[in-house]
Amino acid sequence: MNTEITKTLEFVPAELIKKKRNGHEHTNDELQFIVEQFVNGGLPDYQMSAWLMAVYFQGMTSPESSKLTELMMNSGRVLDFSYLPSTAVDKHSTGGVGDKTSMILAPLVAAAGVPVPMIAGRGLGHTGGTLDKLEAIPGFRVGLTLDEFKKQIENLGVAIIGQTKEICPADKQMYALRDVTGTIESLPLICASIMSKKLAEGIGGLVLDVKYGTGAFMKTLEDAKLLADKLMAIGTNHKKRVATIISNMDQPLGRFIGNSLEIGECVSILNGQSFLGKNPEDFHDTRELTLDLAGHMIWLGGKAASFEQGLKMAQDTLSSGAAWEMFQRLCKEQGGDLKKMQIPNDQYQIKANEDGFITAYDTEKIGLTSLELGAGRMRASDQVDHTAGIEIHKKLGDPIRKGETLFTLYGKDIENRLKIEKAEIALRGATNISLQNNVVPALIAQRKVN
Amino acid sequence: MNTEITKTLEFVPAELIKKKRNGHEHTNDELQFIVEQFVNGGLPDYQMSAWLMAVYFQGMTSPESSKLTELMMNSGRVLDFSYLPSTAVDKHSTGGVGDKTSMILAPLVAAAGVPVPMIAGRGLGHTGGTLDKLEAIPGFRVGLTLDEFKKQIENLGVAIIGQTKEICPADKQMYALRDVTGTIESLPLICASIMSKKLAEGIGGLVLDVKYGTGAFMKTLEDAKLLADKLMAIGTNHKKRVATIISNMDQPLGRFIGNSLEIGECVSILNGQSFLGKNPEDFHDTRELTLDLAGHMIWLGGKAASFEQGLKMAQDTLSSGAAWEMFQRLCKEQGGDLKKMQIPNDQYQIKANEDGFITAYDTEKIGLTSLELGAGRMRASDQVDHTAGIEIHKKLGDPIRKGETLFTLYGKDIENRLKIEKAEIALRGATNISLQNNVVPALIAQRKVN
Repeated sequence: MNTEITKTLEFVPAELIKKKRNGHEHTNDELQFIVEQFVNGGLPDYQMSAWLMAVYFQGMTSPESSKLTELMMNSGRVLDFSYLPSTAVDKHSTGGVGDKTSMILAPLVAAAGVPVPMIAGRGLGHTGGTLDKLEAIPGFRVGLTLDEFKKQIENLGVAIIGQTKEICPADKQMYALRDVTGTIESLPLICASIMSKKLAEGIGGLVLDVKYGTGAFMKTLEDAKLLADKLMAIGTNHKKRVATIISNMDQPLGRFIGNSLEIGECVSILNGQSFLGKNPEDFHDTRELTLDLAGHMIWLGGKAASFEQGLKMAQDTLSSGAAWEMFQRLCKEQGGDLKKMQIPNDQYQIKANEDGFITAYDTEKIGLTSLELGAGRMRASDQVDHTAGIEIHKKLGDPIRKGETLFTLYGKDIENRLKIEKAEIALRGATNISLQNNVVPALIAQRKVN
Repeated sequence: MNTEITKTLEFVPAELIKKKRNGHEHTNDELQFIVEQFVNGGLPDYQMSAWLMAVYFQGMTSPESSKLTELMMNSGRVLDFSYLPSTAVDKHSTGGVGDKTSMILAPLVAAAGVPVPMIAGRGLGHTGGTLDKLEAIPGFRVGLTLDEFKKQIENLGVAIIGQTKEICPADKQMYALRDVTGTIESLPLICASIMSKKLAEGIGGLVLDVKYGTGAFMKTLEDAKLLADKLMAIGTNHKKRVATIISNMDQPLGRFIGNSLEIGECVSILNGQSFLGKNPEDFHDTRELTLDLAGHMIWLGGKAASFEQGLKMAQDTLSSGAAWEMFQRLCKEQGGDLKKMQIPNDQYQIKANEDGFITAYDTEKIGLTSLELGAGRMRASDQVDHTAGIEIHKKLGDPIRKGETLFTLYGKDIENRLKIEKAEIALRGATNISLQNNVVPALIAQRKVN
C-alpha cells in the first residue's frame, strides 16, 4: 500500500460486517483494515462479499465513499502530472451506445494545451468501449506501460491506454468478487471504482459524462443526478476540480455503432469529410456533446476563464484542423495506421413498415444487437469483428415513411441469415413508430461544477 | 443427499443472489441448487455468504423456509421412530438463563409413555446448554452414536445426546459461515437451523419453548410471537404436530444457574427433597414451566386427549416418583453416577444495600456473570467448573430489606478476589430495586397448537 502512515489496528471482521449491516458508519481505520486485509488476503472473500452485500443494502456516507476511494487508489501506483506546465484533465463516461466522444475529445483538448492522460475501458454489457474502438485502427497499441504513457503525455500531451495491473489492484480484485456475488449495482461501490481509477491518473480536473435513458445504466434523470452528485462529492473531498454533465441516452449518440464505423464518424467530425454517405452535419449530436465536454475540460485545465470561453476554444480547435492534426499524431505515436482501416461494405437494410414519427428507441437492445453482430464480446473469449455494427438513419422525432431505411447492418455476419433475422426482429422491437410525435429530450440535461 | 429425486438443474449463482437481493421468492429447484452445491463445494463460501446477507435483508417466504429446512435436514441422516408403538416427541427451547426443564421433562414424558429422542446443545452466548449441565453428572456420556441413541430410545424411551456429524451437516457448515459473516440474526435462517435438526430426529411432534425478555435472544413478546409462528409454520408444512409456548425470561428460571447447581434443582423437583437449604416449593416456576411443556408433549404424543389431561398426567408422573425413577435410569444408562456429583460449597454472599422490591433483572448480564465464574465457556478452549454458578434469592416482585442476601456465588473462583469483585459489580448492576413494586409478567404468555 502507498499510504504513508501504516496503521496496525486490528478489527474483528464479523463485527465490522454487522456494523455496516446495522446501518452504521465505518471509521477510516475500519475501512483501511477492510481494504488492506482484503488485498493482502487477510480478509477472506466470504467475509468481503457479505460486507459488500451489506454495503449494497445500507449504502455509505460521503466520508466513507471518499475514504474507500482513497484506499482503493492507494492500493496501487498513483501517477502525478502536477509537474507539467498545465493541469492534466480527463473525462469519464458512465457508458452509452455509440458514445465515441473520447476519440475526438482527447486530441482536441490536448491540442488546446491541456494534457489528457486517459486510461480507458473495454465494452461492458450493452455499451461499447474506447479501447475496442481504437483497436479498429490497425496497429494501435492500447497496452503502453505506465512509463511509456507518462513519456507520451510529456511529449505529445495525450495518450489513451487500457487498465494496467499497477493501477488500483484493489478495484480489480473487488470488482471480480462483486461480479459473481450480485453486488455490482451499489452506488457507493460504483463511485469508488470509477473515482479511484481516475484519481490514480494524477489529474487535477475531471469531467464526468453521466448518462441517463434507455441506453444508459441509469434509466432515469433522478438516478443520474444522484450518481453525478456522489461522484462529484468524492472528487471535491479529494480536492479535485470536477464537472458533471448529465446527457441523454434515449437514442444512440450520432449515426454509427460499431468499432470502425465509430472511428469513421469521429474522423468525419475531425476533418469535415463525409463517411459512408453521411456528412459531418449528420453527426451534430456527437459533435455537440464532444464540444461541451471539451469546453469543460479546457476550462478545468486552466486554459480558459469560463466554460463559455472553453467551448469557444474547443470549437476553434476543431474547425482549425488542430484537433484532426493531433488525432493523427496520437494514432501515429501509438502505432495506429488510419490508412489500413477496414471500411465496412457488406450491408443489410431494414426498412420501415409504416408511416409516422420515431418516438422511442430501446437503446440498450440496439447496443446488444450490435454486440451480437460481432461489434463486441458476449463472452471474454469472443473475437471482435471491427467492421460490424449498425447505422441509425432516423433520430428521435424524425418523420419516417413506409419503405424508408431505419437501420443498416454492417459486418461479416451479414452472410449469416439466421443472425440477421434475429437482429432485424430485435431492432424492429427496439423502435417505436407512432403517428403522434413526442417531445425529444435535450441532449444535455444538466451541467455542474464544484 | 437423501432426496429421492436428484435433479441436475443448473443455475448461475450470481443471478440467484441477485434474485434474493431484489426481494424475489426462490423456487424449490433454486434452493436445492444453493444448498446442495454449497454442501458439496460447488458453490463457494463467498457466494453463499453474499446470499445469506441478502436473506438477512429480504427474508424468506413460508414455503422458502420450509424447503430450506427440508434441504438442510436431508443433507444428513434422518432418523425415523414411526415404527415405535407411540409417537416420539421432543422439546426445543430458544435459550434462557437457569432453564433446566429438559432434564426433568425428558424422563418424565418418557415415564408417561411418550418416547423422547432428544438431541441437545451446548451453551450459546449468555445461555446455558443441556449437554454442559448433564456433564456435571460424573460419567454421563452425551456422545452416544446414533445407533446407540436409537437402541436406547427403543429400550428405555428416552436418551439425551449431543449433535453428531451425521445430522444436518449443511446446518453445521452454514452456521460456521454465518458466525463469521454477520448473518446469524436472520429469522428464516434461525428457524431452518432449529427445525432441520429437530425434524431429523424422526419425531412426530415438537414442543417449542420460545422465550422473551431480558435473558432471551428475543427481547420482546412481539418478536417471540413472530419467531414462534414461523417455527410452527415450518412444522405444519412438514406435517408435524407442533405446540409453541411463549415463556417469560425477564428473570432466571428457578433459583440456580450453573451446571451441578441446576442438576441439584432438578433432582429436588423430581424427588421432593431439599437442595442447599431450598425446598421444591422454592422452584415453583421451574416446576410449572416443566409441567406445562410436559403436558403438551404427552398430548402431542397421543397419550392424552387434551393439554389439560396431559398436564394432569405430567403432575401424576412427577408426584408418583415415576419421573424420578426414569431420571435415575437415564443417568445409569448413559453412564452417569449421581452419587459422585460434586456439591458446591465455597460461597460468597451479595447482600442488599437498600430496602424495596425487586423490579427488574438484566438476566443476560446475570447469565454472562455465571459464565465468567466458570459455569460456561467464554472461549471454546475454556475449562468448565461444574460447581460454579449463582443462586438467586429473590424473584421479581419480592420485597427485600437492607442486609438480606440477593445472590450467592459458588465455585472455585471464590478464591479469586478480583473475579468476585467484578461479579458483584455486574450482579448489582443487573438488579433493580425500587420502593414502588412492578407488575410481574406471567410465566407463560401464550400457548398455541397447530
